[in-house]
Amino acid sequence: MLAKVGLLKAGELHAIAGGLERIENEIANGRFKFDIADEDIHLAIERRLIALTGEPGRKLHTARSRNDQVALDMRLYLRDEIAGVIALVTGLRAALIRLARRHVTTIMPGYTHLQRAQPVTLAHHLLAYVEMLGRDRERFEQAAARTAVMPLGAGALAGTTLRLDRRMVARILGFKAIAANTMDAVSDRDFIVDFLSAAALTQVHLSRMSEEIILWTTAEFGFAGLPDEFSTGSSMMPQKKNPDLLELIRGKTGRVIGDLVAMLTVLKGLPLSYNSDLQEDKERVFDALDALKPALDLMAKLWPALRFDAKRMHAAAGGFALATDLAEYLVSHGTAFREAHEIVGAIVRETAEAGRTLEEIDIVELRRHSNTFGDDAIAILRAENSVARRTIEGGPAPSTVKRRLKELGGR
Amino acid sequence: MLAKVGLLKAGELHAIAGGLERIENEIANGRFKFDIADEDIHLAIERRLIALTGEPGRKLHTARSRNDQVALDMRLYLRDEIAGVIALVTGLRAALIRLARRHVTTIMPGYTHLQRAQPVTLAHHLLAYVEMLGRDRERFEQAAARTAVMPLGAGALAGTTLRLDRRMVARILGFKAIAANTMDAVSDRDFIVDFLSAAALTQVHLSRMSEEIILWTTAEFGFAGLPDEFSTGSSMMPQKKNPDLLELIRGKTGRVIGDLVAMLTVLKGLPLSYNSDLQEDKERVFDALDALKPALDLMAKLWPALRFDAKRMHAAAGGFALATDLAEYLVSHGTAFREAHEIVGAIVRETAEAGRTLEEIDIVELRRHSNTFGDDAIAILRAENSVARRTIEGGPAPSTVKRRLKELGGR
Amino acid sequence: MLAKVGLLKAGELHAIAGGLERIENEIANGRFKFDIADEDIHLAIERRLIALTGEPGRKLHTARSRNDQVALDMRLYLRDEIAGVIALVTGLRAALIRLARRHVTTIMPGYTHLQRAQPVTLAHHLLAYVEMLGRDRERFEQAAARTAVMPLGAGALAGTTLRLDRRMVARILGFKAIAANTMDAVSDRDFIVDFLSAAALTQVHLSRMSEEIILWTTAEFGFAGLPDEFSTGSSMMPQKKNPDLLELIRGKTGRVIGDLVAMLTVLKGLPLSYNSDLQEDKERVFDALDALKPALDLMAKLWPALRFDAKRMHAAAGGFALATDLAEYLVSHGTAFREAHEIVGAIVRETAEAGRTLEEIDIVELRRHSNTFGDDAIAILRAENSVARRTIEGGPAPSTVKRRLKELGGR
Amino acid sequence: MLAKVGLLKAGELHAIAGGLERIENEIANGRFKFDIADEDIHLAIERRLIALTGEPGRKLHTARSRNDQVALDMRLYLRDEIAGVIALVTGLRAALIRLARRHVTTIMPGYTHLQRAQPVTLAHHLLAYVEMLGRDRERFEQAAARTAVMPLGAGALAGTTLRLDRRMVARILGFKAIAANTMDAVSDRDFIVDFLSAAALTQVHLSRMSEEIILWTTAEFGFAGLPDEFSTGSSMMPQKKNPDLLELIRGKTGRVIGDLVAMLTVLKGLPLSYNSDLQEDKERVFDALDALKPALDLMAKLWPALRFDAKRMHAAAGGFALATDLAEYLVSHGTAFREAHEIVGAIVRETAEAGRTLEEIDIVELRRHSNTFGDDAIAILRAENSVARRTIEGGPAPSTVKRRLKELGGR
Repeated sequence: MLAKVGLLKAGELHAIAGGLERIENEIANGRFKFDIADEDIHLAIERRLIALTGEPGRKLHTARSRNDQVALDMRLYLRDEIAGVIALVTGLRAALIRLARRHVTTIMPGYTHLQRAQPVTLAHHLLAYVEMLGRDRERFEQAAARTAVMPLGAGALAGTTLRLDRRMVARILGFKAIAANTMDAVSDRDFIVDFLSAAALTQVHLSRMSEEIILWTTAEFGFAGLPDEFSTGSSMMPQKKNPDLLELIRGKTGRVIGDLVAMLTVLKGLPLSYNSDLQEDKERVFDALDALKPALDLMAKLWPALRFDAKRMHAAAGGFALATDLAEYLVSHGTAFREAHEIVGAIVRETAEAGRTLEEIDIVELRRHSNTFGDDAIAILRAENSVARRTIEGGPAPSTVKRRLKELGGR
Repeated sequence: MLAKVGLLKAGELHAIAGGLERIENEIANGRFKFDIADEDIHLAIERRLIALTGEPGRKLHTARSRNDQVALDMRLYLRDEIAGVIALVTGLRAALIRLARRHVTTIMPGYTHLQRAQPVTLAHHLLAYVEMLGRDRERFEQAAARTAVMPLGAGALAGTTLRLDRRMVARILGFKAIAANTMDAVSDRDFIVDFLSAAALTQVHLSRMSEEIILWTTAEFGFAGLPDEFSTGSSMMPQKKNPDLLELIRGKTGRVIGDLVAMLTVLKGLPLSYNSDLQEDKERVFDALDALKPALDLMAKLWPALRFDAKRMHAAAGGFALATDLAEYLVSHGTAFREAHEIVGAIVRETAEAGRTLEEIDIVELRRHSNTFGDDAIAILRAENSVARRTIEGGPAPSTVKRRLKELGGR
Repeated sequence: MLAKVGLLKAGELHAIAGGLERIENEIANGRFKFDIADEDIHLAIERRLIALTGEPGRKLHTARSRNDQVALDMRLYLRDEIAGVIALVTGLRAALIRLARRHVTTIMPGYTHLQRAQPVTLAHHLLAYVEMLGRDRERFEQAAARTAVMPLGAGALAGTTLRLDRRMVARILGFKAIAANTMDAVSDRDFIVDFLSAAALTQVHLSRMSEEIILWTTAEFGFAGLPDEFSTGSSMMPQKKNPDLLELIRGKTGRVIGDLVAMLTVLKGLPLSYNSDLQEDKERVFDALDALKPALDLMAKLWPALRFDAKRMHAAAGGFALATDLAEYLVSHGTAFREAHEIVGAIVRETAEAGRTLEEIDIVELRRHSNTFGDDAIAILRAENSVARRTIEGGPAPSTVKRRLKELGGR
Repeated sequence: MLAKVGLLKAGELHAIAGGLERIENEIANGRFKFDIADEDIHLAIERRLIALTGEPGRKLHTARSRNDQVALDMRLYLRDEIAGVIALVTGLRAALIRLARRHVTTIMPGYTHLQRAQPVTLAHHLLAYVEMLGRDRERFEQAAARTAVMPLGAGALAGTTLRLDRRMVARILGFKAIAANTMDAVSDRDFIVDFLSAAALTQVHLSRMSEEIILWTTAEFGFAGLPDEFSTGSSMMPQKKNPDLLELIRGKTGRVIGDLVAMLTVLKGLPLSYNSDLQEDKERVFDALDALKPALDLMAKLWPALRFDAKRMHAAAGGFALATDLAEYLVSHGTAFREAHEIVGAIVRETAEAGRTLEEIDIVELRRHSNTFGDDAIAILRAENSVARRTIEGGPAPSTVKRRLKELGGR
């Protein structure tokens, strides 16, 4: 661009381009000598370029400042990293979708308050996470759009009197927009907050998954087993298989929330335009990426490796968790909801007191509580029937879930 | 909807609708009797409806759970509140744009590291905030879109066997989408995090403005004066005019960041689906709105009320802050940037040591450092000329800022 | 004090004291008229006092500023509130200690990674919380000591030329120390951070307890049942008994952490001395107290109300959780730890593959793996024996726990 | 200890001790080969020890678990690091005290709301920071005491059946206390929170100092100059001297607050006893130390290097900032405070409207507002007299500050 607007001659451009390529090679090969006296990467490269090219190198820094350069660097870097994160989120979604396809009829208890509430299927449960990850992906895409804004030309804060072509630079670097105000261009780190917000919430989602798998793989739940490659033993207790990796993912949530807090705190009360406080952006971003990327990747591998115990899940899904179905049966036959609720409450109480579960009662007993129960009422009291009848859009019925899986496609 | 799908008869619908209207009136008039035994607003209304209508009232809760109801309530409430916040952000932007129109040629120093760096204009400075607020608005719009998803029909977590028409409910309530998974529908509070993230960053922006106005109205800066209605006196020091309101806005940043942290912490490690931890969402949202809305409103009124001291701002904008212009003059005449930087460095050092400023030197002195300086170089050394020459897109030149103001229109 | 140093005459003192008492009554009886124009409680009281007493009332504000007054108010308030919190922490500790006394021999599994690791007792488990709460109490006591510093006399920031007796005021108000620097006196809110730090960690401890009780009362663990007064039902599912209160306590952790973040953020980058940002301290303290105090109180009532299922806990405590005991048996008879670890690993593997547990194997099988096993080795393989042998200081053996309970006394 | 209680023979002890010393050397010399398969440092050392010593090495892990070992490691490490931090805090306090001794009579304005309020001295201002740092030191000392608790003997969570002497280990390692409950011993990371809380608040204090020095070194305040070694230049603006280091310190506040948030979030809702989430403690501690230690060190060097402009500070300290003194003069001569406040308010208003300052008015003018003004009233209207009269304990009068400096001694 500098050559095009006449600030560099063709020969100078050639020398600089050649020099920079050589420096890139030196860095790639580990032969580049960094010197603390250079203060930062910008000056280190410029110094080397001058050593290599002489006069042309001294024109490298024309019409720019480290303030707009470092803003550019972060935007280029984060743009690419967010793209990588989006791919990982999509990969995890795809893994969950594939797993869901295999478990459309795998019955399990759905929980509220960690108490068994109503039967659902594993597929339906997994699709709840697919929804969360879909929102995460959207958030990262929106963060990426606000990241892809080209700041060069802002100089230190006030632009430049030199006749640059900012839009040409944006085009070359693959940015769709240029920063509309030079002071904002050098003091804006909102895109970092955007990324960290999206990262924190995604990590929270991973922590929710981790918590559930940790629960499911306890002796008490016993819904799933962790294969050896995803668990570790104990130095003292030979029998242990510990879900370390999931605990680490859950633990790293604190870190990413902390990174977000850090960045917001840095920006609080900061006058315009560039202040060195903003340098804190880098490590927070690296730290969040170091937590998030391996966690997304690991989760995509761990879910399909879980060995589910469908029998045990099914066994936990029946019993009193079917009470709501009974109440809805009555409602669908005209009983007012509150009355249905009371009738079923009485049935549950009576059955529990007798040490039995709902699956064990018969139509005579049901009728004793309400004449509305027809012969078809007993069929409800099986978890698979209960689930199959919940065909409402968004619900767990296998037919409904299959339709949803079709809509989702592979990602 | 319940009537349409046959779960309510026409008469029941009529009774319920009439009863609810009456209850609405009772609440509006303060005649509704709340009873702690009702647990929550849902049950309180239902109880009263049953008292008013008998049997029909007992059908109110048909096919719904407090889990999906409370998710709906929060989404309805927040959807409206975000719309209000967006209006306030737009109002503040409009106030800044109007103020900028009046200060396109008001010269002031631009700062980096709180050190005077280069002259800009007040309009240009204000437009940096307009950019920030534009991003804030976009963020709230995206949060609103993720809020406007209709959860009803999810029941407690697993949907319902009753034949509801969820899309009809969405249409009536003005939602464009319905929740695609019932378990996600009742356990999702991501939209709260979306709102709080946007609110925290917006409040950070308000804190940055506050900090600057507080600085500008110090005796030391003296760039602006606060009118009496926006400042308070001291109980002990009769001469004081304190920027309390701005300090309060700045201080409330901590609160909104804290609200965001609270909500992320609540969600961390929470298994599906509904858990009562989620109740914490309400107060955090109220708290953030209580901080943000008055702050946005106040800022929109305070900016235009500031009495700027254009003379003092101009006086602070010249001097060594013009050094960059000298360097760019040389660069535009072919001197390599590094050489130009060194030449101007020497001029600055020499001038400073002689106790003078750049505006006081003449062309002879300039030429002593570099022959490249032509007769037109001296004209650069006036802040208004320096600014006028920075016509680069996004820059501070009055002509450029006017073009930008035109693009922005009124909001 | 003002009378003693001669700034008030006896009659004035009398009039002011009488007037303030009357105002106190008016406020207590709800007859005091607050007026927004008074700005704050200080001016409201002064205005009323002047109305009641005339000239003497106009001397009330002598030698003080709202800056040192509000610092005093917060210190008085928080000093009392912390004392209340300490009493609640002590109450909860006492409840746990009492409960522990009843469960010195109640065997349960101890967990690491939420996997059953080794048998412990319920008493031992509860004493872990007693330790945490002991540290919490110490932290509050230290916060209280830093709170109990008397700021009056600091005036707005720079003290006063009037001859006050600050130590006399401190004595009257029950403070042991006076603020040693007037600028610090009005800008210090570190004691708020001290309190919020202690509160956040205490609430984290309550969240850990909550999590455990929530787990223990699941159908899957089944270690304990929640009595009706500590659980709530479902509006849709008649069979549910939900641990709402514990979820609320766990959820409020986010809020208290958020309050701490808020206060630290407020203070960040704040120049001396008083700034109105500091007003944010009040609501954060109220908010944290509103979460913490009821949670401590509730926990003290809920623990003793839990109905433990000692049989089920015992059943979960044996099996492979006894493997470590086997290894330690070998070590105590001279086998190197690593070898013991390997031998027992082999026993566990073999037993598990045969679908049996450690309690089912006999001495012949043990000897097949190592001759070191003597006849007494089998006795180890009972959870109660395993626990009884862990008499190491701090360990779970009933004899050890009884000694510890004696040391602890009632609090 | 293992040898003393008979779990190691003398020869084994000798072999292990020798082997560990050799390994220590290997690590120190960079010759130790780390292998990812070893999982952690504990196993790496044990593996090497076994290679070096054979059978004795296989006894190294006797009666311990990585759970209690890692708790010990963190406590040993943090105990030493906190001692280092305390030394740095003390060093910074000492630097401020030394600087204060040189500026007992250096007049400057004291600010509230960043508005000039009353004259103080630089020494008095610095002593406010000495107070803050004194509290910080106390907080670190209390954190250190809670850190210095010996966990070994807790094993994985449940202690051990082996006859260890935990108190002997504590003595050897220099701990005063042992963990009183084995489950708490392995799951307690409260001492990390203690440290991070103290670190966050200390860093907040450093941010407050940084903010003030940044303000003081602006062109607008001009109270102090930064020497070259503590400022950096601009790549584009040859005249700039930027307070980068102070901005970095201020910016790092976010990071340390974030570390605290991270650790609290990790602990929230974590069941007993050890979970791998706790591994997050290490990096958060390292991160906080990396921010805090250099900042404390740098501040201790930067303060004495500041070049104060006593003349400019003095000039800013007079004028209307003396109004309070006038009011107090009247009060000390019997005028009611409210009346004095009104009289001085009128004087200030009149003087300001006439474009004059308080130092320019004479006794006649004062008397026109109140007969109570005696001939000695005019003398008040000089900043140095104003300060000298504020001899109240904790106040800015040179005599008072000297007394305080004597009390403080060197630290």
